[in-house]
Amino acid sequence: MEFSVNQIAQLLQGEVEGDGERLISGLGKIQEAKSNQLSFLSNPKYEQFIYSTQAGAVMVRKDFKPEKSIDTTLIKVEDPYASFTVLLEEYHKALTYSKIGVEEPSFLGENSTVGSDIYRGAFSYIGSNVVIGNNVKIYPNSHIGDNCKIGNNSIIYAGAKLYEGTQIGNNCIVHSGAVLGSDGFGFAPQEDGTYKAIPQMGHVVLEDNVSIGANTVIDCATFHGDATTIKEGTKLDNLIQIAHNVTIGKNTVIAAQTGISGSTEVGDNCIFAGQVGVVGHIKIANKTTLAAKAGISRSIKKEGEVLFGSPAYDIKQYLSSYAVFKTLPDINRRLRELEKKS
Amino acid sequence: MEFSVNQIAQLLQGEVEGDGERLISGLGKIQEAKSNQLSFLSNPKYEQFIYSTQAGAVMVRKDFKPEKSIDTTLIKVEDPYASFTVLLEEYHKALTYSKIGVEEPSFLGENSTVGSDIYRGAFSYIGSNVVIGNNVKIYPNSHIGDNCKIGNNSIIYAGAKLYEGTQIGNNCIVHSGAVLGSDGFGFAPQEDGTYKAIPQMGHVVLEDNVSIGANTVIDCATFHGDATTIKEGTKLDNLIQIAHNVTIGKNTVIAAQTGISGSTEVGDNCIFAGQVGVVGHIKIANKTTLAAKAGISRSIKKEGEVLFGSPAYDIKQYLSSYAVFKTLPDINRRLRELEKKS
Amino acid sequence: MEFSVNQIAQLLQGEVEGDGERLISGLGKIQEAKSNQLSFLSNPKYEQFIYSTQAGAVMVRKDFKPEKSIDTTLIKVEDPYASFTVLLEEYHKALTYSKIGVEEPSFLGENSTVGSDIYRGAFSYIGSNVVIGNNVKIYPNSHIGDNCKIGNNSIIYAGAKLYEGTQIGNNCIVHSGAVLGSDGFGFAPQEDGTYKAIPQMGHVVLEDNVSIGANTVIDCATFHGDATTIKEGTKLDNLIQIAHNVTIGKNTVIAAQTGISGSTEVGDNCIFAGQVGVVGHIKIANKTTLAAKAGISRSIKKEGEVLFGSPAYDIKQYLSSYAVFKTLPDINRRLRELEKKS
Repeated sequence: MEFSVNQIAQLLQGEVEGDGERLISGLGKIQEAKSNQLSFLSNPKYEQFIYSTQAGAVMVRKDFKPEKSIDTTLIKVEDPYASFTVLLEEYHKALTYSKIGVEEPSFLGENSTVGSDIYRGAFSYIGSNVVIGNNVKIYPNSHIGDNCKIGNNSIIYAGAKLYEGTQIGNNCIVHSGAVLGSDGFGFAPQEDGTYKAIPQMGHVVLEDNVSIGANTVIDCATFHGDATTIKEGTKLDNLIQIAHNVTIGKNTVIAAQTGISGSTEVGDNCIFAGQVGVVGHIKIANKTTLAAKAGISRSIKKEGEVLFGSPAYDIKQYLSSYAVFKTLPDINRRLRELEKKS
Repeated sequence: MEFSVNQIAQLLQGEVEGDGERLISGLGKIQEAKSNQLSFLSNPKYEQFIYSTQAGAVMVRKDFKPEKSIDTTLIKVEDPYASFTVLLEEYHKALTYSKIGVEEPSFLGENSTVGSDIYRGAFSYIGSNVVIGNNVKIYPNSHIGDNCKIGNNSIIYAGAKLYEGTQIGNNCIVHSGAVLGSDGFGFAPQEDGTYKAIPQMGHVVLEDNVSIGANTVIDCATFHGDATTIKEGTKLDNLIQIAHNVTIGKNTVIAAQTGISGSTEVGDNCIFAGQVGVVGHIKIANKTTLAAKAGISRSIKKEGEVLFGSPAYDIKQYLSSYAVFKTLPDINRRLRELEKKS
Repeated sequence: MEFSVNQIAQLLQGEVEGDGERLISGLGKIQEAKSNQLSFLSNPKYEQFIYSTQAGAVMVRKDFKPEKSIDTTLIKVEDPYASFTVLLEEYHKALTYSKIGVEEPSFLGENSTVGSDIYRGAFSYIGSNVVIGNNVKIYPNSHIGDNCKIGNNSIIYAGAKLYEGTQIGNNCIVHSGAVLGSDGFGFAPQEDGTYKAIPQMGHVVLEDNVSIGANTVIDCATFHGDATTIKEGTKLDNLIQIAHNVTIGKNTVIAAQTGISGSTEVGDNCIFAGQVGVVGHIKIANKTTLAAKAGISRSIKKEGEVLFGSPAYDIKQYLSSYAVFKTLPDINRRLRELEKKS
């Protein structure tokens, strides 16, 4: 595929400055792009590269004024990064829309229905009473248990596993090895020291536009009819643990290896860094930011806080204390000296 | 399925107070249950709801005395929570016992034997010389390597993987994506800076009544004939790492994302919270409790301790120090003032 | 298989002291080995056992001088541990080289080629345009996406998943449930609070002699043509997260449950313990050692440092401060007393 700079600018509603007839056949970073590639300048840190780039064209902000002469062609847009994302996405779609049809052997249980333009890879398993929408891709070796529902345009990658009754909305992505609907970790201690499993009979719900990373696990809710729920637009990274009966709000982003314990409610528009741990049965306010490795042991009621440490509290206060922590041997020594004097 | 309150009370050896002819067809929480549902009251915190619940019947303690009038029917039992668990379990069994038979294509290697009332899902793989007991469920896309043994009534969920020689007792559950028997992480450093893999030739043993969470990994032991062992009644949550040659005692409960390093021995009746880390080659006494994110760097010899922090020590002492840690900038300031005065 | 002590000594270029005609048919620990087994003495801590061992023969250092009489036969070698490793490896090869051939059903896409002496397990999936070398083992239920390359002598264990375009060198091992090439966690925040996925179009490269643990995840690079790269000889343990565009140097060893964030470059010959977290967009010098649970928030420029804590710094300094941390309630009390006096 090859497009002229003018064609691309038209698609992005951008304005061309320079040679609009140059032909572009790929995308690249501003430092590395070749003459048939398109790049973008968004972070001012990279502005220096626009004067030396080999890229055929570069997308820049509407108000960008070069300080020196420039060889490349400019496409002026509202938000160069967003425009770049749009192009990548279009390119990606062109590639992935090619997977359509059914590879054999694959398994489709009784009373299950699939929409149009489906891909079902070899060794994919779809149980009984499953309802799958249009343009869904079920990659090889993946498992969709009985009574599951999957909306339109969703992708289940190779080896992802959905237990019985999992419900997935439209435009969702479940990456390889992710497990949705495994038993919550509920065991009732008995008098003789053994544990009795509390049957876990609920399910998992992903609303629309949710993305689940590779090898992430989301346990089902305990009671029949209840759901562990990931709300609209929320994105979970890899190797995350979401325990039974948790609710994660809308447009929340959680980085890898974080764990949320049972029955906790996380708000909307939160950002959790990696390896965070959150105890069970608490509520976390909207727009809470948790720094890497934070350990949350109580409800967060005020919106917009940024927390660090374990147990976590305000990150600025934590780092002030941590700066003094580094000098503790010195503080100890100074205290002893004062004691001698007194 | 529909039962009268009297029928349920009989099953639980409970005593009915109120209308015993009401019909029950499901279970629910006391705050939310409908008139055809059964609930329970165990935690006194929820006692208020018994005066307003819509539930058809509620299980309560034998000695429960209502303070106001009550609309619902009471079933008086020794332990309402335990009774609720029994009912859930019976209901669950009724559902899961329906999976029986062999879906094709599935793979059964040479010299392998399976007991009666088996479920083998499509695309499940059973290698050679495998021995599988009665009433075992091998879900789709799971992998049972050569020379494995699985006892009666055990469940291997979709996409779980057992390496060669894994031995699983009776009444065990292995959740989706769990891996048992992968190579221990053993590499001998060479003079040129490279590492040479130390062949890992042992296996993994799960004794009876063990439960393994989704995407948890248990490495095999190093030497042929040795085993990484999870003893009777122990429950592991999701995404846990158990390294080579570890032994976990009986009736120990370990929460998600915890890691136990090589050759460590964990005692009986321990409780580990999530994201705990334990170094290798140590022993942890029976009844040890580790709080979330604890880092254990030495053997724990005394039973019944509760530890926190990294390196971890007594949780109360840790939290006392942590309370002062929060004031360190203030302590630093006060110390300076004293120094000025002295 | 049975060999005389003399035969084994010849293979290892060792010197026999004692009865060289004894027959050996297995390997064992010095404390437990039987008369037909071979053991080794490397760690002086175990020297006591050589005077009582039942082993038929024991490998010892060339300069080993017994202090008492010894019943077992000695094989004197440069490095007993290394010799033991060699024997284990040979034994292991003998066992694993038996897996050859194709089990059906298995899937091989269009235009894909496989070398000689291949094992392809049942329900293994190989996409289109895949190139696989000689003596490669693709275990059951594993997934090799389109356009992947796998070098000679590599092993892909049951249920491992390679996304499209993954490139694996010679002599690599990918354990069960590992995922290579899943989408990097890249989402562009939109003005309305939602996130737009940034298409992830790069791939993953494992150079030669790389080992990837069970359920570890390595995300693909963002841009088409770029790769998240694990260099020659590097070994990753289980449940590790490697984000998009990360590079890990040569002969680096990373323990379980560690996470490396996007675009970070880790040097050669590093050793990371378990549950370490590293932020994105930094560089870590060669020969850096990170202790368990360390949190790295800035580039490490000097080679050979050993770091602990979060944010991490020199481990000795950290532990000095931590020793004082434990006494903080006492320090607080002493400070108050001085204040009263002053």
